[in-house]
Amino acid sequence: MSSNTPVPAGFRGVAGNIGIKDPNDDFFAVVSEVPAHVSAVFTRSRFAGPSVLLSRRAAADGRARGVTVIARNANVATGGTGDENARELQERVAEAAGVGSDEILVASTGVIGRPYPMDKVRAHLDALPEEFPPADLDRAAAAMMTTDTHPKIASAKVGNATLTGIAKGVGMIEPDMATMLAWFFTDADIEQPLLDEVFRRVVDRTFNALSIDGDTSTSDSAAIFANGLAGAVDTAGFEAALFEVALALVRMIASDGEGASKLLEVRVTGARDDLQAKRVAKAIVNSPLVKTAVHGADPNWGRVAMAVGKCSEETDILPERTRILFGDVETYPAENTDEVLARAAEHMKGDEVVISVDLGVSEGVFTAYGCDLTEGYIRINADYTT
Amino acid sequence: MSSNTPVPAGFRGVAGNIGIKDPNDDFFAVVSEVPAHVSAVFTRSRFAGPSVLLSRRAAADGRARGVTVIARNANVATGGTGDENARELQERVAEAAGVGSDEILVASTGVIGRPYPMDKVRAHLDALPEEFPPADLDRAAAAMMTTDTHPKIASAKVGNATLTGIAKGVGMIEPDMATMLAWFFTDADIEQPLLDEVFRRVVDRTFNALSIDGDTSTSDSAAIFANGLAGAVDTAGFEAALFEVALALVRMIASDGEGASKLLEVRVTGARDDLQAKRVAKAIVNSPLVKTAVHGADPNWGRVAMAVGKCSEETDILPERTRILFGDVETYPAENTDEVLARAAEHMKGDEVVISVDLGVSEGVFTAYGCDLTEGYIRINADYTT
Repeated sequence: MSSNTPVPAGFRGVAGNIGIKDPNDDFFAVVSEVPAHVSAVFTRSRFAGPSVLLSRRAAADGRARGVTVIARNANVATGGTGDENARELQERVAEAAGVGSDEILVASTGVIGRPYPMDKVRAHLDALPEEFPPADLDRAAAAMMTTDTHPKIASAKVGNATLTGIAKGVGMIEPDMATMLAWFFTDADIEQPLLDEVFRRVVDRTFNALSIDGDTSTSDSAAIFANGLAGAVDTAGFEAALFEVALALVRMIASDGEGASKLLEVRVTGARDDLQAKRVAKAIVNSPLVKTAVHGADPNWGRVAMAVGKCSEETDILPERTRILFGDVETYPAENTDEVLARAAEHMKGDEVVISVDLGVSEGVFTAYGCDLTEGYIRINADYTT
Repeated sequence: MSSNTPVPAGFRGVAGNIGIKDPNDDFFAVVSEVPAHVSAVFTRSRFAGPSVLLSRRAAADGRARGVTVIARNANVATGGTGDENARELQERVAEAAGVGSDEILVASTGVIGRPYPMDKVRAHLDALPEEFPPADLDRAAAAMMTTDTHPKIASAKVGNATLTGIAKGVGMIEPDMATMLAWFFTDADIEQPLLDEVFRRVVDRTFNALSIDGDTSTSDSAAIFANGLAGAVDTAGFEAALFEVALALVRMIASDGEGASKLLEVRVTGARDDLQAKRVAKAIVNSPLVKTAVHGADPNWGRVAMAVGKCSEETDILPERTRILFGDVETYPAENTDEVLARAAEHMKGDEVVISVDLGVSEGVFTAYGCDLTEGYIRINADYTT
């Protein structure tokens, strides 16, 4: 099959259906032909699954070949059996790809507390080809989907190198060091620890700026594999490209948030520092009252003020120097004439709502990404079967 | 008019309709005939309104006579005009009651960012009776309602003394030092600072254990007025009675949470200390994924595990020693047979769902109160007009 999105040189892969839940692809592996540098970040959940533990270990030395993912079963809280199954998956994929098992990251996403159906997993692994064909990253992105309504993939060129990222995620999303699942592949030549530095900086401004529901997954993992086949690249250019690709994925995840009808972007400026800006932006993007107001296209700036006010430790935040805008319409402290509110409501009727808050303290900035809260979120999550 | 709920000796009051929004009562004042001890706690919101600032000052010396409330307009983020209006309300009510203006607490709840309609407020205050009749606390409780579906009042006897509490609140509720609005009146004789100690201890285990949506109001206020007319009471007995009344109000607020169909009680035991138990209980009771599972009567213990796991700073929390129960049915680490899950689901179909988590670390305990997350919450909040 042919992939529409560019794939960096030297990445091979397989994808297919194990039959965990339905006939759609629920498995993939992507592996570099040559050794690659890796940088990875993982959930800090106290209930992190065995996949996260294995991957953390595999990525620890800054070198890895690739990743394998099973979707629709998280293999979390599955005890000793879960540990063994994750290890078997890692070993069997490494063996099929002809690499060391400590060179393969493992991830899993879906229902918690059920062991893999290992008979089906083994039957699928038994049938893997002798040699992996060139990777199809569009298909890999689709194979990770759970309640995602579409695959999430983005790509950029940096000099001669290609950078392509894939992600999945719709709920249980307030990444704490990482997102649900996001994988970046590049043939750029970037050494460790520079790759690590760049990756963490970008993740902090993209995946860690994302929140669908304030809930943190037990399976969050993100990694970048750089195999160097396209040679050296300009570092600043690489970071800009990585930011662009990661942000595109984040916006796709936010727009596809469970039940979401709108992307919500919250820009906080004028904070004491970037950390304060992040706390305030997160308080707003996570507020159910702000999220429902966005759903109703209601320029209820009082709820934004409430969410800012929640940051009660931030004693340098003062109502007197705070400004609140919907789109480019100032609603506080501006006089709230009917005309002003009508223009703000007009902005909120669009697919992308931007709420800006300037704290008037100093230069700190942070932009957070999320979505509205709708009846669809309730329906999806009240009915999702254990 | 006659009150069904007992009113402690020496409290007089008025209630009526100013006409802020509709013809229902939206104003009351309750004032003790004699000087009373007061203990009060207020929101820590950075956007706290002028009513909170005035009340904080009025309660600072531990003595106050009573409180006046306007509902359906929060008088928050209303600038200098809002300050003046709150002060005028305080002065006029004090004058009508024949007490000092620094003896009256003021509170307001409702829409943010609109000044009071002062012509209507003044006309109402002009018409207050020369002498306040005995207080009708049922009517006062009703006069505070905004989107509350019923008034919240509870009462207890302690020796010869009566203790009656009234509260309001349905959304924007994760009290941070206090709840929306809660007022306790008693004729027990309790000196400061003992009253303060007891009140804060009870608030921490009741109103501060409550969360409807994780959003913190700009108007949260709670106070107790003790005028001593019934003489001294046993302190332990008084604290027990206050806890009972406060908890009854908290359970009413949780059950009446915006759109709620079920009360959710989260009991955390075996924590390192009570503070850790509180953090974990709050993480669970606030998780939208847990709240939607409760709505769907789905014993999705994986989501409870996820919420526990979110407390990533708590490194002594280990999956191996954690237990999760729905009602009295253990779902983790117990084997999840169909029969176990069916019994857990049966419990969740009731009006009150109890989720218990034992962390197996030490003796810390905390119980948090909340409600399920429903389509009704979205409807109420997406449509609420600014």
